[in-house]
Amino acid sequence: MNAPALNEQRVTDADPVASAQQQVMAAGQFAAARGWVPATSGNFSARVDADRIVVTRSGADKGALTPADLAVVNLREPLPPGLSAEAPLHVARYLADASIGAIFHVHSPAAALASRRNARHGVLTLEGWELQKAFAGVTSHLAVLNVPVFANSQDTVALAAEVEARLQNQADLAPGYLLAGHGLYAWGRTGRETLRHLEAFDVLLQLQLEWERNPL
Amino acid sequence: MNAPALNEQRVTDADPVASAQQQVMAAGQFAAARGWVPATSGNFSARVDADRIVVTRSGADKGALTPADLAVVNLREPLPPGLSAEAPLHVARYLADASIGAIFHVHSPAAALASRRNARHGVLTLEGWELQKAFAGVTSHLAVLNVPVFANSQDTVALAAEVEARLQNQADLAPGYLLAGHGLYAWGRTGRETLRHLEAFDVLLQLQLEWERNPL
Amino acid sequence: MNAPALNEQRVTDADPVASAQQQVMAAGQFAAARGWVPATSGNFSARVDADRIVVTRSGADKGALTPADLAVVNLREPLPPGLSAEAPLHVARYLADASIGAIFHVHSPAAALASRRNARHGVLTLEGWELQKAFAGVTSHLAVLNVPVFANSQDTVALAAEVEARLQNQADLAPGYLLAGHGLYAWGRTGRETLRHLEAFDVLLQLQLEWERNPL
Amino acid sequence: MNAPALNEQRVTDADPVASAQQQVMAAGQFAAARGWVPATSGNFSARVDADRIVVTRSGADKGALTPADLAVVNLREPLPPGLSAEAPLHVARYLADASIGAIFHVHSPAAALASRRNARHGVLTLEGWELQKAFAGVTSHLAVLNVPVFANSQDTVALAAEVEARLQNQADLAPGYLLAGHGLYAWGRTGRETLRHLEAFDVLLQLQLEWERNPL
Repeated sequence: MNAPALNEQRVTDADPVASAQQQVMAAGQFAAARGWVPATSGNFSARVDADRIVVTRSGADKGALTPADLAVVNLREPLPPGLSAEAPLHVARYLADASIGAIFHVHSPAAALASRRNARHGVLTLEGWELQKAFAGVTSHLAVLNVPVFANSQDTVALAAEVEARLQNQADLAPGYLLAGHGLYAWGRTGRETLRHLEAFDVLLQLQLEWERNPL
Repeated sequence: MNAPALNEQRVTDADPVASAQQQVMAAGQFAAARGWVPATSGNFSARVDADRIVVTRSGADKGALTPADLAVVNLREPLPPGLSAEAPLHVARYLADASIGAIFHVHSPAAALASRRNARHGVLTLEGWELQKAFAGVTSHLAVLNVPVFANSQDTVALAAEVEARLQNQADLAPGYLLAGHGLYAWGRTGRETLRHLEAFDVLLQLQLEWERNPL
Repeated sequence: MNAPALNEQRVTDADPVASAQQQVMAAGQFAAARGWVPATSGNFSARVDADRIVVTRSGADKGALTPADLAVVNLREPLPPGLSAEAPLHVARYLADASIGAIFHVHSPAAALASRRNARHGVLTLEGWELQKAFAGVTSHLAVLNVPVFANSQDTVALAAEVEARLQNQADLAPGYLLAGHGLYAWGRTGRETLRHLEAFDVLLQLQLEWERNPL
Repeated sequence: MNAPALNEQRVTDADPVASAQQQVMAAGQFAAARGWVPATSGNFSARVDADRIVVTRSGADKGALTPADLAVVNLREPLPPGLSAEAPLHVARYLADASIGAIFHVHSPAAALASRRNARHGVLTLEGWELQKAFAGVTSHLAVLNVPVFANSQDTVALAAEVEARLQNQADLAPGYLLAGHGLYAWGRTGRETLRHLEAFDVLLQLQLEWERNPL
């Protein structure tokens, strides 16, 4: 809006750590305003470069993140203490797919419920909704999108291995997966694209839940 | 609020393109605040004069539109590149009805769901709700309003022809139609009237969905 | 916030018309922010003195009322043109009960739906909810509150007579009634109390609808 | 934001009464913004020291509390007049558990409904939701949390005795209990922790209600 703000922007553009921090802080505010990260839940990350990400520390209020709530983590080194317990799920995704620029994980009510309802199938299938076109690369409502659903686990290292093994062996997936009774992981090439994917998932999961409640 | 703002207003009043732009930008903010255009979905237009409209380009965040996100289009010339893929649906409506001053298209959850549930009937019927009187020309809750529902399609030129063929042959319709699993198109003589129609449709579709969920 | 605002307040305190206008404008903002007056629906009034009320004119956006949107009406004289078509329902209540200081009418989705569902009984019964104690004079959740439900009508003069005939013959009623598929009328001794009643009704009607959807 | 605000903060840090007042006022705003204290319902308290609490007076709008709306109460002396009728439920909890720093009571629709639906069981059981980990000391979604549900009563002294008798005899409970058709009491070691518990309860009760509406 004024000169200092412009200056901050210039600094950011030149500093990939600060840019990743800003993507994470903006995503936290966006998610908190929509009720997707209740009670300090959720965790958010963005890629700094080929080797590093920025990721939220444990317990922070995601609607009011500051750089002090974020850690810079090397993807190929042991994780430092104090991170979210789910950091291994982030790291594994970045290592598996170099095109991913940001990963946002939310506990929205729709994600907690739709995941648990579909856990026995191991998949939630989206089909026939125009809004599916909000996902990068999807060009028709006729696309069938299979969102993997995994049983929830507190052993996130083992869970990350299970998730990646399955994602490697499937094509044409939506840019996200569900943990049963827990929430949604979504990703994209940039923070902005990942937010668009989160927003589309949230509405699509609500539509799916309504459809299951009252099928034709 | 201050002199520059007043000056902008004066320019607007004198300039039909700027006036149409402002109607579209205001409608985008209104719809975004209500969750009707998730994940950059939706598209909005307003008439400039007998031959021209302003319409949103593809991919813009509808809650933060600027004039750069809007194109001026001649209704009787080929469409320029970069528009929303649904621009033909707007153009066909303006050409068919000279009284239409604005057309707003939203992907509200209620519209996506109610349209898909009623697709097999090709129509969603509203009857008995006082709020129907929010539609221009409707004077009683006893009016029976038939909102056409079309199968969704990515071929919007063919879809526009199908829509207009049906609308030409019916009278006493509500000022809008639904695309199944997709959303709502609504129109009015002005941007303000079209917003009032959008707001009424959104509540009426929610009421209709609740009624279908739990009929007496 | 500053001197002019304080001055306005002083004028208001001394002027019963301005005080009634402010109660109505505040109520309109409160209701609009909660989605209770979609598409310019609803109407609001407040008593000036034994003979006069302030009431909304037809068609105004209830979330942005100004004194120009409000008329001063004498309760014992013919109604002037330009008022809401429902002004007779307001006038009849003020004439019937001198303790009423404000009447607010909303089209909240819960009111439109709960009224229509219970129209065949002519009454919606609230019982067992602690929030019932928000109504003036109710001291226990065990109170049984019978909210009258009337068939909707565009003949508001005849409807007002029907409403008042029934209200005269019943005691222990909640401070409001429903019009089927239309909305809620609520009253209180002051604008503030009437807003409290509106807010309690809205939640109680939602609870009642949920209970009907999924009875034990 | 500026010098006076910083000064107020310093005063607060030095004054346990002012600190408790600020926790209560912040909680009231938080709850009001989420629709949990409709129509002036709800009541809030925070511990000053081993012997004293701050608690809301009767009838105040919880979203706009000032110090004048709060009373300082000695836990071991008779209650002064003008308090919320539910003050005995607060006092009994503080006396029973010295680790409790704040108790917030809300009338959220989810709490009113879920409590009434589960009143016949005397308990609402939460199991399998990741968000349960928002409660202090809960480390897995596999924990089974039994939230006591009590019949509602206007005799809050007798009700407090019933509540405490039951809580003394049970372990591994969630940090809260429900009153049927009424609402939720939740506590924590600090105001901040209690708000986190409230937020988690609200989502968990919504999830539970949805699950009961549409079981697999």
